[in-house]
Amino acid sequence: MMEFSIKRDYFINQLNDTLKAISPRTTLPVLTGIKIDAKQSEVILTGSDSEISIEITIPKQVDGEDIVTISEEGSVVLPGRFFVDIIKKLPGRDVKLATNEQFQTLITSGHSEFNLSGLDPDQYPLLPEVSRDDAIQIPVKVLKNVIAQTNFAVSTSETRPVLTGVNWLIQDNELICTATDSHRLAVRKLALEDESDDKNVIIPGKALAELNKIVSDSDETIDIFFASNQVLFRVGHINFISRLLEGHYPDTSRLFPENYEIKLGLNNGEFYHAIDRASLLAREGGNNVIKLSTGNQIVELSSTSPEIGTVKEEVEANEVEGGNLKISFNSKYMMDALKAIDNDDVDVEFFGTMKPFILKPKDDDTVTQLILPIRTY
Amino acid sequence: MMEFSIKRDYFINQLNDTLKAISPRTTLPVLTGIKIDAKQSEVILTGSDSEISIEITIPKQVDGEDIVTISEEGSVVLPGRFFVDIIKKLPGRDVKLATNEQFQTLITSGHSEFNLSGLDPDQYPLLPEVSRDDAIQIPVKVLKNVIAQTNFAVSTSETRPVLTGVNWLIQDNELICTATDSHRLAVRKLALEDESDDKNVIIPGKALAELNKIVSDSDETIDIFFASNQVLFRVGHINFISRLLEGHYPDTSRLFPENYEIKLGLNNGEFYHAIDRASLLAREGGNNVIKLSTGNQIVELSSTSPEIGTVKEEVEANEVEGGNLKISFNSKYMMDALKAIDNDDVDVEFFGTMKPFILKPKDDDTVTQLILPIRTY
Repeated sequence: MMEFSIKRDYFINQLNDTLKAISPRTTLPVLTGIKIDAKQSEVILTGSDSEISIEITIPKQVDGEDIVTISEEGSVVLPGRFFVDIIKKLPGRDVKLATNEQFQTLITSGHSEFNLSGLDPDQYPLLPEVSRDDAIQIPVKVLKNVIAQTNFAVSTSETRPVLTGVNWLIQDNELICTATDSHRLAVRKLALEDESDDKNVIIPGKALAELNKIVSDSDETIDIFFASNQVLFRVGHINFISRLLEGHYPDTSRLFPENYEIKLGLNNGEFYHAIDRASLLAREGGNNVIKLSTGNQIVELSSTSPEIGTVKEEVEANEVEGGNLKISFNSKYMMDALKAIDNDDVDVEFFGTMKPFILKPKDDDTVTQLILPIRTY
Repeated sequence: MMEFSIKRDYFINQLNDTLKAISPRTTLPVLTGIKIDAKQSEVILTGSDSEISIEITIPKQVDGEDIVTISEEGSVVLPGRFFVDIIKKLPGRDVKLATNEQFQTLITSGHSEFNLSGLDPDQYPLLPEVSRDDAIQIPVKVLKNVIAQTNFAVSTSETRPVLTGVNWLIQDNELICTATDSHRLAVRKLALEDESDDKNVIIPGKALAELNKIVSDSDETIDIFFASNQVLFRVGHINFISRLLEGHYPDTSRLFPENYEIKLGLNNGEFYHAIDRASLLAREGGNNVIKLSTGNQIVELSSTSPEIGTVKEEVEANEVEGGNLKISFNSKYMMDALKAIDNDDVDVEFFGTMKPFILKPKDDDTVTQLILPIRTY
């Protein structure tokens, strides 16, 4: 039966990542556990909530240092969070796991000895098979950026399930990621380095958020494989699998108005902080609405709440094209959009008081944030 | 009407401390606000939830640096947390407050301008007067220690209100602090440096917990003044006032058994961590019960939960007097007591399986922790 000894510090890090796939609220009790497979030359950890799955391979050695010594091959499922808490608190540098035929698992380290009831790994669902050819490659830094610039805009309501995901469209060796909750829309375009087949899939926003947490900023590249209803992200020793959302993503290209009336060039940080302050009052007033009025170089932001008071902020524009305008918007959408624009200089294009407006990094078309105004004037 | 300009950083720190007295759940709406009094040579901030009150004096200068410039004396009450959030996010190094006769307050900093509806300070309750003579003095470090070593043991249940407080008994120039929830008891004794009148009061545990958060570790001394139903702690520019609990605190001296059967000398950290690990399983099993058995130099800790598994921990004692014993206890009480013993070496005295046991720092009678065992054998 399964028996191995492993460096505790390294084990803790891998277990913490595996845990991220596990939900305490699951209909299948075995999924609250972590599956451990000791093979001849590696130990594999698996966690899953049936929507996303994480599979981590622990090799015998990492950077020339011995990590795990496997005495007997075998498998067991141990109670996820509880097991990880134990491993974290054990006293020794190493920990030894030994499982008997009833899946009772003896965990020893220093003068500490736990004996846990494990589950039969045959009860654990099989992970979906995702074909390992036809991958696209994206540097980890870029992927994290792409996720951060779009994922916040997905819908949190299940009324239109496709909108809870991000549309990944691969066309002519370009990846176009689109997210919208129908009040605002985020688009990120990325030229792919290698020749890629066209694809059109919807990846759940929650899965992308988890992926972003697990993958740490590095110079590595992530391989992405698509199957008919699954996507596999592989980086280093981690496999991250998510199901895809079914259905057709709406065509959003017709939402973009043409020929702006007014264009402002603003400092991202200054504009963001002014909105942040005005939103304090807007939020306290309960409606989150901020008014913007422009004319000359000064952009004025204001919010009024009869019971509480008023706020007025002035931001100086670096560039102004066009005349005067008054427009109202939800401060949260504006702040989300400004955060997603990874540039000190931001261009804001207005098409009229009742039409959506657009935010972009200056001289850069890879990121576009569109926001619907609120009717107040 | 009130008008002053103040260094924003300094103001934020004082406002944060004032906020600690304010509860969002209050029956008196004016108490969700912070009262600001600008006087000729100082600004005074007041926060209160009617149980505790904090009064902070901001002088014109601190360490030779100008802090506040007062143009007009006056007072206003501004909405607590919301006002502090605004001050935190303002752009300038200074912030100016100006109040009109309707208590509308104009807050300006950089290009930012808030106009808040304030309340009439006459609606704010008067703080209780506590006589400023007959103080006892305790170094801040010692006071924080005294609170940490007793306050955790107060009762959280309102069945016997006096037990939600800590009994401070001053007798023969000694302060004896006692807290108990009737399952465990903590006592801390402290010799007072100056001649002091005898006192016997009960200070609410919640007030002491807040006081501990506000008073930062320093070499200062805190002055403590007692009135018939209030206590005032004064340190630096902070006045902290709490009501006292009414009623008689039970006589706990008869709870201490005499002539121990067994005495163990243990390393505090080793013992604590072994219990911490065993408690993982005890907690998961739902009862928090750990068994201890002693004999020779090895102290064995164990816990069993039929569904989940078992744990066994061994701790080597430095000293052993007496024979064998098996006893069960609540792991949380034991861990709280060990944390409160500010010493690497701890003595544990047992008086029999069914009698309370006692923990003390080795060769030190200032801290005594008593715990009632759980009947399991």
